[in-house]
Amino acid sequence: MKNFVFQAPTKIAFGEGQISHLPKLLAEHGQKVLLVYGGGSVKRNGIYEAAIGLLAENKFIVTELAGVEPNPRIETVLKGRELCLENEIDVILAIGGGSTIDCSKAIAAARYYDGNPWDFTQDRSLVGEALPLVTILTMSATGSEMNGGAVITNLATQEKLGMGGPTLIPKASILDPTYTYSVPTIQTAAGSADIMSHLIENYFSRNTTAALQDRIAEGIMKTVIAYTPVALAEPTSYEARANLMWSSSLALNGLTGSGKEGTWTCHAIEHELSAFYDITHGIGLAIVIPRWMEHVLNEQTVSQFVAFAVNVFGIEATGDDFAVARAGIKALYETFASWGIPMTLPEVGIDESKLALMAEKAIEHSAITKHGFVSLEAKDVEAILKNCF
Amino acid sequence: MKNFVFQAPTKIAFGEGQISHLPKLLAEHGQKVLLVYGGGSVKRNGIYEAAIGLLAENKFIVTELAGVEPNPRIETVLKGRELCLENEIDVILAIGGGSTIDCSKAIAAARYYDGNPWDFTQDRSLVGEALPLVTILTMSATGSEMNGGAVITNLATQEKLGMGGPTLIPKASILDPTYTYSVPTIQTAAGSADIMSHLIENYFSRNTTAALQDRIAEGIMKTVIAYTPVALAEPTSYEARANLMWSSSLALNGLTGSGKEGTWTCHAIEHELSAFYDITHGIGLAIVIPRWMEHVLNEQTVSQFVAFAVNVFGIEATGDDFAVARAGIKALYETFASWGIPMTLPEVGIDESKLALMAEKAIEHSAITKHGFVSLEAKDVEAILKNCF
Repeated sequence: MKNFVFQAPTKIAFGEGQISHLPKLLAEHGQKVLLVYGGGSVKRNGIYEAAIGLLAENKFIVTELAGVEPNPRIETVLKGRELCLENEIDVILAIGGGSTIDCSKAIAAARYYDGNPWDFTQDRSLVGEALPLVTILTMSATGSEMNGGAVITNLATQEKLGMGGPTLIPKASILDPTYTYSVPTIQTAAGSADIMSHLIENYFSRNTTAALQDRIAEGIMKTVIAYTPVALAEPTSYEARANLMWSSSLALNGLTGSGKEGTWTCHAIEHELSAFYDITHGIGLAIVIPRWMEHVLNEQTVSQFVAFAVNVFGIEATGDDFAVARAGIKALYETFASWGIPMTLPEVGIDESKLALMAEKAIEHSAITKHGFVSLEAKDVEAILKNCF
Repeated sequence: MKNFVFQAPTKIAFGEGQISHLPKLLAEHGQKVLLVYGGGSVKRNGIYEAAIGLLAENKFIVTELAGVEPNPRIETVLKGRELCLENEIDVILAIGGGSTIDCSKAIAAARYYDGNPWDFTQDRSLVGEALPLVTILTMSATGSEMNGGAVITNLATQEKLGMGGPTLIPKASILDPTYTYSVPTIQTAAGSADIMSHLIENYFSRNTTAALQDRIAEGIMKTVIAYTPVALAEPTSYEARANLMWSSSLALNGLTGSGKEGTWTCHAIEHELSAFYDITHGIGLAIVIPRWMEHVLNEQTVSQFVAFAVNVFGIEATGDDFAVARAGIKALYETFASWGIPMTLPEVGIDESKLALMAEKAIEHSAITKHGFVSLEAKDVEAILKNCF
């Protein structure tokens, strides 16, 4: 196990009706609130109304920033910063999924930064003081509700890059599983694939002595695999939605990644797909992951794939390690496919024209050549992408 | 899954050499430090010297409270309070295992309480403001390094009772696995039994819909079962000590208990054994748990015991549920025994003379009749204790 510093201080109010905690959670930080949300879904499902009602009742002064994009853009961050400065905002309230929360984090840091907040994606040390952030989660996927990371998109340069820092960790997050009842089928599936991806990226690490983290990751993966079909078949299953929602947070709050080693590979690759084609992140990951697994399966890595197959999918350890490993990869592929996820790039509108360019960019924007689970060059990434056809 | 509020804000500095963070972690809270520790082991193994050196170098003003007992006593808490007031202490530094940390928590709260701090065990609402606490953990067992709970003993009344509150959660804990290299064999085994007990008490809950928590608990249990024999055979195995140490913290920081239901039974029973006979907590638990399991195994609970047997011990689900359940309980018993734990009460110096009295006290001091996994009366507790002979 590598040395690590772990801190996941977000106060989680979990369960149906926990929005009642909102006024108290916000008031700790001030009265002037920037309310950030995405499209109209929070208005359709009543969450916006419930929050606004509580804010009005408790005399908060609210400024709104609506229309955050699914891959939130730097322009929206700049708009948010302006609103914070003009309105002397004390605290940001994000209502939405990972995109809204990520955008809010970038705004929170941009409030105290004079330069272009895109700089944060180039140099994490620029993320300093930030406005406090409270979130109301409406989708189980990114884990952004309990960590300090964010991903921002710059369409002008076709870049989608990460940023983050401990000051961006939400102070509190309200997790009400009923708020995810209306998440459409494909978004539910994509969200679960995203949760799986975080666990898988942490799980396949160069060091294998952080057994506890791996056992916990396996436990969360088994939960996601068990409950995603339930949520898809019965969108208002509280048990399924609750287990998926809490899985989302615990998959990426440091619990399964601390003490492990190396950088994430599939996210580096997927971010290029989203940057060039604006596809849904979780779907891009589901397409890439099994092909990446096949590409990096070798004598050195096979034992980790055997553990994955046996412990997550209950595949029998027959002694033929490569066969067991491949059965595990196949089980994962079939799991994603069974959730209704389109499992090839053409199905999401991506042709072969930019594969080489995206492969190069993935290498340029990440450390996967040096620090990936298995070191990859641009030609490896291109091969992985070609296998997605 | 039941509604819950989860917050585990302790900053964890994990790994060899992380004591280097100590001055910075303390300085956030002030310069006047109450240094709390137990017997001489922290002096023998060099941790005391390392800490004192760093404190002197960084000009902290240190007051010492040595000699905290294995079951820390209310008199020591009172002594600590006096030292805090006399020396205008800003922050408490606990170096030790659960007893030292628990005692420090009670002192931290007592500092701001005019009455008898034993009151905290009777009414948790009395725990308010508290001195900040930083810990250096030297034993993997209680999880006190990452939660707000404490257990204090009153030998005069033969009571060992819990107290706690969010203000008592350590601000930071330094977890250096090498600090547990010198923990004696029997204490290592008792510590692992204690970790298992926390997981088991949370796992066997009346509600069975918090699947994620159960899968995580199974993962931690498997880790403890895998690494305890390694640590016993090879006390300086960093991998084993590291996995056990982090298991200790994660078993009882809210992760496996939030969203579950009911009160803990085996701890209520064991606290009476320790209160009357001052035995090692983890050993008392290892003796009681399998007998409690046998007592509460029935038509309603069998499916949970099957999950335990299959998921933790890899016992085959044959369809004969009671046989599978009993095989799981037997596997747990044999696991504890294989660690060298004395598995009967006579072996730890307890005869039958006070069984009925201890059973009555367990009922009086807890809510297990109303809120236990299976409701127990005094006669049930007595029967469980009789089976420990």
